[in-house]
Amino acid sequence: MKYVKKLVCIDCGEEYDAEPDKYLCSKCDNEGILEVEYDYNKIKEDWSIEDLKANEDLSIWRYLPLLPVKEETPRPSLRVGWTPVYDSDVLAQELGLEEIYLKDDGLNPTGSLKDRASAMAVVKAQEAGATTVACSSTGNAASSLAGNVASMGGKMDAVIFVPERAPMGKVTQLLIYGAEVVSVQGSYEEAYYLSDGAIKKWDWYNRNAGINPYLVEGKKTVSLELAEQLNFEMPDWLVFSVGDGCTIAGAWKGLYDLKQIGFIDKIPKLIGVQAEGCAPITKSFRTEKPLETTSEDTLADSIAVGKPRNYKKALNAIRESDGTMVNVSDEEILDMMVTVGQTTGVFGEPAGVTGFAGLKKLVDQGVVAKEDKVAAVITGNGLKDITNGKKAAGEPLEVPPNLELLEKTYKRGDRF
Amino acid sequence: MKYVKKLVCIDCGEEYDAEPDKYLCSKCDNEGILEVEYDYNKIKEDWSIEDLKANEDLSIWRYLPLLPVKEETPRPSLRVGWTPVYDSDVLAQELGLEEIYLKDDGLNPTGSLKDRASAMAVVKAQEAGATTVACSSTGNAASSLAGNVASMGGKMDAVIFVPERAPMGKVTQLLIYGAEVVSVQGSYEEAYYLSDGAIKKWDWYNRNAGINPYLVEGKKTVSLELAEQLNFEMPDWLVFSVGDGCTIAGAWKGLYDLKQIGFIDKIPKLIGVQAEGCAPITKSFRTEKPLETTSEDTLADSIAVGKPRNYKKALNAIRESDGTMVNVSDEEILDMMVTVGQTTGVFGEPAGVTGFAGLKKLVDQGVVAKEDKVAAVITGNGLKDITNGKKAAGEPLEVPPNLELLEKTYKRGDRF
Repeated sequence: MKYVKKLVCIDCGEEYDAEPDKYLCSKCDNEGILEVEYDYNKIKEDWSIEDLKANEDLSIWRYLPLLPVKEETPRPSLRVGWTPVYDSDVLAQELGLEEIYLKDDGLNPTGSLKDRASAMAVVKAQEAGATTVACSSTGNAASSLAGNVASMGGKMDAVIFVPERAPMGKVTQLLIYGAEVVSVQGSYEEAYYLSDGAIKKWDWYNRNAGINPYLVEGKKTVSLELAEQLNFEMPDWLVFSVGDGCTIAGAWKGLYDLKQIGFIDKIPKLIGVQAEGCAPITKSFRTEKPLETTSEDTLADSIAVGKPRNYKKALNAIRESDGTMVNVSDEEILDMMVTVGQTTGVFGEPAGVTGFAGLKKLVDQGVVAKEDKVAAVITGNGLKDITNGKKAAGEPLEVPPNLELLEKTYKRGDRF
Repeated sequence: MKYVKKLVCIDCGEEYDAEPDKYLCSKCDNEGILEVEYDYNKIKEDWSIEDLKANEDLSIWRYLPLLPVKEETPRPSLRVGWTPVYDSDVLAQELGLEEIYLKDDGLNPTGSLKDRASAMAVVKAQEAGATTVACSSTGNAASSLAGNVASMGGKMDAVIFVPERAPMGKVTQLLIYGAEVVSVQGSYEEAYYLSDGAIKKWDWYNRNAGINPYLVEGKKTVSLELAEQLNFEMPDWLVFSVGDGCTIAGAWKGLYDLKQIGFIDKIPKLIGVQAEGCAPITKSFRTEKPLETTSEDTLADSIAVGKPRNYKKALNAIRESDGTMVNVSDEEILDMMVTVGQTTGVFGEPAGVTGFAGLKKLVDQGVVAKEDKVAAVITGNGLKDITNGKKAAGEPLEVPPNLELLEKTYKRGDRF
């Protein structure tokens, strides 16, 4: 924590001590979202790119000077972060680009980018003296919390509130990790409010990324890593799917931090992509009006958030970086699952590839130029949502165990 | 290939040039399995632990001197290998041990250890001049082949034969990767024979690990890595689940290689664990009689192989290392999914945790002593087989979005 100065309200600018369980701005009636402020000059004095390169810890904790945790707090044992970056010519071609970097965050230990935030939550909960951590989640925040808590080896408990539409893969995963799972018969928003009430009532640590300022600090490691993996030569654009708004806000915060300490000299323009059936942040971005709650009509469950809690940070990220937003249909999302899978061998969940679908649209529209350098992040593993994967991929060819019959099918040209 | 000497038949000792598409021993009527022989003295001269430590490539290709590939052959872009090793006190306690190392190979890019063999197959296929690679598989070999082929960016095709019982997650995954999938209405054995016929008929490259000597060389990287991650201080025991026999054979080969070049001074005793409902190799090990085909009655589909093709190499691995074999029930496997998940945050598929279930049994029986140092490998990701995960984990607590009702449920002590 030696580089953390304060928590600052992004609405009114009020400052607070960086207590581990300080979530929202009291002056703004507990509506204002807080942001962690670092002493960048001090970090610059103590930490260089060479120091970073010499660090053998290939996980999010290699960025300790830029993380709001005490060095001595025990960390989950799961290896979170340092996910691979691939440079795919064929995918670039499919998207209408000359070059694309794909970062596969579905290879985090529980299968999504959310491990970055959950690992942080487990550390901060301990610093707050809590042994139970709770959240509401469409799935990935939940399973990542459950997994990271489990890896503490019985020292902590996780209580998870999921909306009933959460895919079976995600719910099963958190039951396997031993979390207490509350399946709320209602929407994501209703699950959120129930968790909020329960957290206050039983004094649990709150891992709801929309209000806990430390979680965005975990998520920002995705752009710290990407920058390092690209040798600190930043692309023109960086693309994320957007649900609650926390991930793209985190990505921006990481880039902002790196620029402040001089590791990078430009921040890529951020592209936020929402699903047509649930795009409140895109609407607010375009109309420049306050956010209006929408319905949640998309199969990309991880970004189906009708009332996003971190939209202000998300909008700020996009505007500050001179970026843009775009919506895509469920059909475009399903098509992109196959395009990414066939060209790169990476299987992303629907929300995981949504950013790529939006990117394709923006290239078609001429917003992103063919020669622009672009990076995009697969935020979750496709194995988490097989039902939609199946919709995207179709059915296998069924044959009896007989070579002649296979040859006949083959010759009919049905599939081969 | 500069360290590869020959292919040697493990039955009759006949030697062959290491052609990329030489699969079986012609002298033994194409029944004898071949093994890759290296010039260990030359490797010792050229390669040291220090060289290895200085290598920044954190994938299976860091072990190039011990791999049977040409340096210049293009490799799949997926980052295969360097999966994490965890040291869990709580899991050790559950197993009755003082210490256990868990290697999570479910974090390979397509979710299983098989990526190691498939990456090898993609390289060897190119060396053989083939553009189509085919296999029959219960799932993981298939999806790993499909993913690794896809990551070549359209340069190659995969044709996959799966038995109809393959879990939806695995089949969906390979359709997403764009493979041609043939779902064979029959057993694993029938799928195998159909693939064998088709491969010969259409002259595809054969990625059936039981007969292709190079694939075991890919799989052996799991023990090369484990050794390096444990600083070349080897445990007393190393545990794997066993289906076709190739994985444990590969693990042994890696250890044997490391001992020959002086990187390690002892080979751990290998423990092979099969499911009670499909344990032909355990039976042959115990009776010392030739292998008899069995039925395939287990939910651990990845090791449900009634007629394993590589049982001789597997038995050799276990006997040469002075190891042992044991069987476990499906119930013990399901229980172990939860035990591993809750204590470590690692979600393994049924076959992925079968080794741990067997280990627990051997500790109970006194074969493995409490103070022995043990490592075991999670061979596949639990997200691949949600149906069985759900059987193991049970159901979440369902509540309406109402705090009072939640509290009532809570107070009734049903779940919290």
